[in-house]
Amino acid sequence: SFLLCVFLISFLISNAMDNVSTERLAEESHRQDSANLLIFITLLTLTILTIWLFKHRRFRFLHETGLAMIYGVLVGVILRFGVHVPQNMSDVILGCAVNNSPATLLVNVSGRFYEYTLKGEVGRGKGHQVQDDEMLRKVTFDPEVFFNILLPPIIFHAGYSLKRRHFFRNIGSILAYAFVGTVISCFVIGLIMYGFVSFMKAVGQLGGDFFFTDCLFFGAIVSATDPVTVLAIFNELKVDVDLYALLFGESVLNDAVAIVLSSSIVAYQPAGDNSHSFEAMAMLKSFGVFLGVFSGSFALGVATGFMTFTKLRDFPLLETALFFLMSWSTFLLAEACGFTGVVAVLFCGITQAHYTFNNLSPDSQDRTKQLFELLNFLAENFIFSYMGLTLFSFQSHVFNPLFIFGAFLAVFLGRAANIYPLSFLLNLGRKNKIGSKFQHVMMFAGLRGAMTFALSIRDTATYARQMMFSTTLLIVFFTVWICGGGTTPMLFCALHPIYRTFNQKFYVKVTVFFFRVGVDSDQDSPNSAVLDGSQRRDTKHESAWPFRIWYNFDHNYLKPLLTHSGPPLTATLPTCCGPLARCLTSPQAYENEGRLFDDDSDSILNDATVSSMYADVTVSTDASGRTVNRSSGTRGLSDDCVDHDLALAEHEVAIRGTRLVLPVDDPVEPPTTVTLPSPPSPPGSEPRRQRL
Amino acid sequence: SFLLCVFLISFLISNAMDNVSTERLAEESHRQDSANLLIFITLLTLTILTIWLFKHRRFRFLHETGLAMIYGVLVGVILRFGVHVPQNMSDVILGCAVNNSPATLLVNVSGRFYEYTLKGEVGRGKGHQVQDDEMLRKVTFDPEVFFNILLPPIIFHAGYSLKRRHFFRNIGSILAYAFVGTVISCFVIGLIMYGFVSFMKAVGQLGGDFFFTDCLFFGAIVSATDPVTVLAIFNELKVDVDLYALLFGESVLNDAVAIVLSSSIVAYQPAGDNSHSFEAMAMLKSFGVFLGVFSGSFALGVATGFMTFTKLRDFPLLETALFFLMSWSTFLLAEACGFTGVVAVLFCGITQAHYTFNNLSPDSQDRTKQLFELLNFLAENFIFSYMGLTLFSFQSHVFNPLFIFGAFLAVFLGRAANIYPLSFLLNLGRKNKIGSKFQHVMMFAGLRGAMTFALSIRDTATYARQMMFSTTLLIVFFTVWICGGGTTPMLFCALHPIYRTFNQKFYVKVTVFFFRVGVDSDQDSPNSAVLDGSQRRDTKHESAWPFRIWYNFDHNYLKPLLTHSGPPLTATLPTCCGPLARCLTSPQAYENEGRLFDDDSDSILNDATVSSMYADVTVSTDASGRTVNRSSGTRGLSDDCVDHDLALAEHEVAIRGTRLVLPVDDPVEPPTTVTLPSPPSPPGSEPRRQRL
Repeated sequence: SFLLCVFLISFLISNAMDNVSTERLAEESHRQDSANLLIFITLLTLTILTIWLFKHRRFRFLHETGLAMIYGVLVGVILRFGVHVPQNMSDVILGCAVNNSPATLLVNVSGRFYEYTLKGEVGRGKGHQVQDDEMLRKVTFDPEVFFNILLPPIIFHAGYSLKRRHFFRNIGSILAYAFVGTVISCFVIGLIMYGFVSFMKAVGQLGGDFFFTDCLFFGAIVSATDPVTVLAIFNELKVDVDLYALLFGESVLNDAVAIVLSSSIVAYQPAGDNSHSFEAMAMLKSFGVFLGVFSGSFALGVATGFMTFTKLRDFPLLETALFFLMSWSTFLLAEACGFTGVVAVLFCGITQAHYTFNNLSPDSQDRTKQLFELLNFLAENFIFSYMGLTLFSFQSHVFNPLFIFGAFLAVFLGRAANIYPLSFLLNLGRKNKIGSKFQHVMMFAGLRGAMTFALSIRDTATYARQMMFSTTLLIVFFTVWICGGGTTPMLFCALHPIYRTFNQKFYVKVTVFFFRVGVDSDQDSPNSAVLDGSQRRDTKHESAWPFRIWYNFDHNYLKPLLTHSGPPLTATLPTCCGPLARCLTSPQAYENEGRLFDDDSDSILNDATVSSMYADVTVSTDASGRTVNRSSGTRGLSDDCVDHDLALAEHEVAIRGTRLVLPVDDPVEPPTTVTLPSPPSPPGSEPRRQRL
Repeated sequence: SFLLCVFLISFLISNAMDNVSTERLAEESHRQDSANLLIFITLLTLTILTIWLFKHRRFRFLHETGLAMIYGVLVGVILRFGVHVPQNMSDVILGCAVNNSPATLLVNVSGRFYEYTLKGEVGRGKGHQVQDDEMLRKVTFDPEVFFNILLPPIIFHAGYSLKRRHFFRNIGSILAYAFVGTVISCFVIGLIMYGFVSFMKAVGQLGGDFFFTDCLFFGAIVSATDPVTVLAIFNELKVDVDLYALLFGESVLNDAVAIVLSSSIVAYQPAGDNSHSFEAMAMLKSFGVFLGVFSGSFALGVATGFMTFTKLRDFPLLETALFFLMSWSTFLLAEACGFTGVVAVLFCGITQAHYTFNNLSPDSQDRTKQLFELLNFLAENFIFSYMGLTLFSFQSHVFNPLFIFGAFLAVFLGRAANIYPLSFLLNLGRKNKIGSKFQHVMMFAGLRGAMTFALSIRDTATYARQMMFSTTLLIVFFTVWICGGGTTPMLFCALHPIYRTFNQKFYVKVTVFFFRVGVDSDQDSPNSAVLDGSQRRDTKHESAWPFRIWYNFDHNYLKPLLTHSGPPLTATLPTCCGPLARCLTSPQAYENEGRLFDDDSDSILNDATVSSMYADVTVSTDASGRTVNRSSGTRGLSDDCVDHDLALAEHEVAIRGTRLVLPVDDPVEPPTTVTLPSPPSPPGSEPRRQRL
C-alpha cells in the first residue's frame, strides 16, 4: 500500500466519515489537492511545449531540464509572493507530549479510531513556527516520493538503455571512475568543506552544528553526476561511442555508488555519547554497510533480471505488463530486504536489457522501450520542475555565502581530483589513452541532477542538512543551466579535434574487463600510441582473454539458458550433460539456431554486431530523429574491432544479407534498421562468407 | 462545522527514543510497506502467468478478472487466518476528545510540528475495537485510490477505444439504455430492496438503520455494468459489430450515469431534522446536481479533448507525454471544479479518439494506445485482485442472507426492467429491431465490476453501507465468475442464430442520431423487416439527415479546425470567410488534402471506412491476435452501408489502392493492415474512381 499511497497521501485525503460537514471539508481539500497537482501537470505541459519549440527551432543552448527548472522557479515565485492561502481551520493542532513522532497515528475521536500517517515535519525554520501558508505546504512533496516513485524509472531507464557492448568494453575504467573516483571526490569535497566549516565556525558565521560526517555526507551526495543531463545533450550531437559509453557508464554507476555511500555515512554511528568522533569500529561497520548494501542490491537486481524469463511472446500486452511488474518488484524486494531499491533497479535494467530483452517479442521490445522512455521523461521533468519550485517554496533555506563559495570550489576540485589523477593512473594501464581534452570534457560534463537533489531533500531536519540542501540546489541550478547549456557549444568547438585524436589514439579493443582495472602492471607497454597491424593483433590476442572467457561463457551457457536466442545448450554443453541440456533448452532455441544472430541483433544492441556496425558505418541522426545518413567504409573495420568481433560481424553480414542494424547514438531512439541497396551487398558479403 | 477544541491526551506511550530509533521505526515501516505492495505485485504476476496459460491452452471458462479475484481471495484467506502480525508499538493511540476527525493533523511533538494526514477510519466493527492485525490493516487501501488512480485509466481506455462509428450509429439506443435504463434499474432495485429491508425490520433481522435513500444508493451502484468483463469476453469471439457497439456503449455510459446518480442521491439532503423523509425541493436539488455534474463533466471532458491540439508530430515522445498529461489534467480539472473526474475522462477519451488521434504521428498513435492499454490492464487486474482480497481482509463485513437474496433478486429484476421494456419501446421506433435473443444476451451480459466495487467501498462507515458493501462484493463475484465465465459458452450456442437474424433484420444504417431516440413517432413504418433496394434507399435518404448534418459539420468544419486531417477550411468555408479560414488552417492540411482519407483511416477507426470495411471483409482474429483471415465479398456492401458511406468507402478504396485497414473486433488490438495483392486492386479501383 505504500508506494501508491505515498503519492496519494500528498494529495488525497480520504473521507471515511458520515459527518456531512467533515465530508465537505474533505471534498474541499481534495479539490485543492487536485488543483495543486494540476499546477505540476501544467508545468510539465508548458515544459513539453517549450522543448518542442526549442527542438523545432534547433535552439540548443538551454537543456529541457533547465527549462523545467525555470518554469518551476517562476511558479515558486508566484506561490511564494503572489498567492497567500491562510492555514486551513481543518488542521487541528494537537499539542501532544509525545517524545517522538510515530509513522502511524491512531486517534481516538469520541470512540472512533482514525488512522493518520506521518507526512513529515513542517516549518521548523523560524523559531519553530508552523508554516502558515497552506498553498506552499500543500505543494511540498514527501521526499520519499522521489526515491520510491520518481527515481526508479529514471535509473531503470538508464540501465535499460546502456550500450552494453561499449559499457562492458570500458568496464574497467568505468568502475575505476565510479568507485574510486566517487570515493575520492567524496573525501576531497568532505575535507575542503570541513576546512571551510571550521573557518566559518572560527569567524562565527555558522548558525548550528556541522560535523565532519555532515561534510562527508555533502561530499557523497554532490559526487553523483547525472546521466540525464549529460547524455541528453550528448545525444543531440554525434559523439564518439566510447566517450559516450565511458561518460554514461560513469555517471550511471556514480549515482549508485553515491547513494550507497551516503547511506553508509549516515550509518556511521560511533558508540558512546560523542557521536561525531572518529572510531575505527564504526568506520569499519560503515564500510561493511557500504559493501553489504551495494553487493546485496547488485545481486538482487541481477537475480531478478535473470529470473524475468518470459515465454509469453504471443501476447505482447501480458509480456509488457509482466516485464513492468518484475522490474517494479525488484525495487520493492530490495527495499523490503533493506537494500537500496534504486541500485537494484539499475542492475536489473542492465541484466534485463542483456538477457530478457532477447526473449521479448518485437512488439514488446518496442513497448517496453517506449514505456520506460515515457516514464523516464515524465519523472525527470517532474523532478527538475519541482527543483525549481523548491527554490522558493521550501521554507527552511539556509543560504550562507561562504559555504556556497566553498561548496562550488570543493565540487570543482573534487571532480578534478576524480578525473585527472584517475585518468593518469588508468592511462598507465590503458593502451587506448584517455586524451587530455577528453578529460576536460569529462570534467566539464560532471553535472549534478536528480539524484543529488533527491539525496539532499531526503532529510532537511538539522541546520547542517538545511544549509546543504540550499547549497546543493544552487549547485544543481548552476551546473544544469551553465554547464548543461554550455556543454553543447563547447563540444562543438572541442569535439572535432578530440574526435580525431581519439580515433588515432584509441584503438578500440576489448582489452579491459571486469577483473582487469587498468591499473594492473603487466600491461604498461609505454609506447602504445601507434602500433602496426600485426603487433596490435598480438597484444589483442594476449590481452583479450578475460573478455573472451566471459563472452564465450555468456554466449554458450547463460544466453541459451536464460533466453531463447542463444545456440541450444545441447550444442554447447559436453555430451555427458545431454539430458540436462535437453531439459533446459526451450524448443524455440532450436528453431532460432539458424537465424541466431538475426534474432539477437534486432534487439537494442547486439554484442556481436555493435562494434562492426560502428566500424563501417557512421551513423548520424538528425534532430528530428528520422533521417539517417550512413557512410560505409572499410577503413575503421580493422582498427576498431578485435578479431573475433570482426569474424562475428562478417558472419553476421553474410547471414543477414541486405539488412544492417545501425545502433544510433541516442539511447532513447530504437535502433534504426537500414535496408542496404541490394546490388552492392551480395558481392560484399559473399567473399566474407568464404573467409569464415 | 467545528472549531478548535480542547485536547486532552489520555493515553500516550513515551519510550525515551531519540531521532535514531524513530528513523529506524520509519525505515521498518517503509520496509513492511514495500513487502505489502510486493504481495499485490506478486498477485498480478501470478494472474498474468495464469492468464497466459489459459490463453495458451484456449481455456475460456474463467475470465482473467475472475482469476485475479481467485488469487486475491487466496491471499486474503492466508492473511486473515495464516499470518498474524500484532499491532506495532509505533502506532501511538491518542485518545483525544476531538469532535470529529480533521483531514490534516499537526502534532506538536516536544516543540516540533509533524503533519499527519487522515488515512481513514479503522476497525469500528466489533464493539469499536481497533483492529489489532497490523498486516490486514496495512493491505487496506484508501478507497479514494480507486477513484483517483485506478479507475481513470480504465474509463479513459474504454472511451479511447470506443468504436466511434458504431457508437454514434447506435447513439439513440445507447443513450436510452444508459440514462433511462440505469435510472429505471436504480429505482426498481431501490424499491425492491426497500420492500426487503422493511420486511427485515419487521422480522427483526436488521441490525441498524437502512433508509430509502440507502436503497436507492444501492440501486445506483449496482446498476453500473462493467465494460471490462463483458467486452473482454466478447472480444475473444467474433461478435457482430452492432451488438458489440450497443453493449459496449451502454456499459461505458452506464458507469458514468451510475457514478453521477449515486453522488446525487448522496446529495439528497432534505431540510430539517428528519433527514430521510421525502421532500420535493431536495429531490429537485438532487436532480439539479445530477444534471449539473453530468453536463459539467461532459463539457469539460469534451473541451479538453478539443484542446489537445497537438502539432508535435516530429517528436513522438513529447507528443505521447503531452497527450498523457492532457488526459490526466482533464481528470484533475474536473475534480478541482467539483465535477466527476471519471466522467470527464470518459468523454475526453472519446473526443480525443475522434479528433486528437488524427493529429498524432503514427508512432504516437501506437504509443498512446499501447500505454493506455497497459495502464488499463494493470489497473483492472489490480482492482479485481484487491476485490478478492477484501472478501477476507475487510473487517466490518455484514452478511445478511435475506438481504443478499433480496439483492440478487433485485439486481436480476432491475436489469430485466431495464432491458426488456426499453427494447420494446426502442423497437417501436427502430427499423432494425433488437431481437429477443439479443435482449437475452444483453440481460445476461450485465456484469458488475470495478465501478460497482469502487462506489461501494468508498464509504463503509454506517451499518447500511457495510451491508451494501458485503452484498455488492458477492454480486460482483457471482456475476464475474458465473455469468462472466458462462457468457462464452452461452454465446457460442446462442450467437449463431442471433447473428443470422441480426444480419437479416438490422439493415445497418445511420438512422438514429443524438436527437432521435427511437421512440419518436414519425418513423414507425411497420413492415420494415425486408425491403427491396430502392425502397430502402428512399427511407435512408429521408432518415439519415440528422446524421448527415452532423457528419458534414464535423467533417467540413470541426475536423479541419481541430486536426490536420480534414479538408482545408479554405475549401469548406464560404469565400467571405477566406482570411479567417487561411489563418485557422494548418499548412499540413493542404498537404493532406490529397491523401485525406488515407490519413484518417490509419487511425483507430475512421468514420467513413469502418462500415464499408466491415461490409466486405469479415475479420477473424486468432487467439494469438496475429493471423487475420479475410473473406471479401460484395454481398454485404449494399446491405450494410448507407449510400454516402458507400460512396466514401469507394472513394477511399480508389485512393488507397492496395491498402485496406481492417478494424479488428478487439479494441485492444491495433487495427490490422492487410496489403491486398496488387493485381486485382487497380482494376477494382479504377472504375470506381470514374464513378465518383
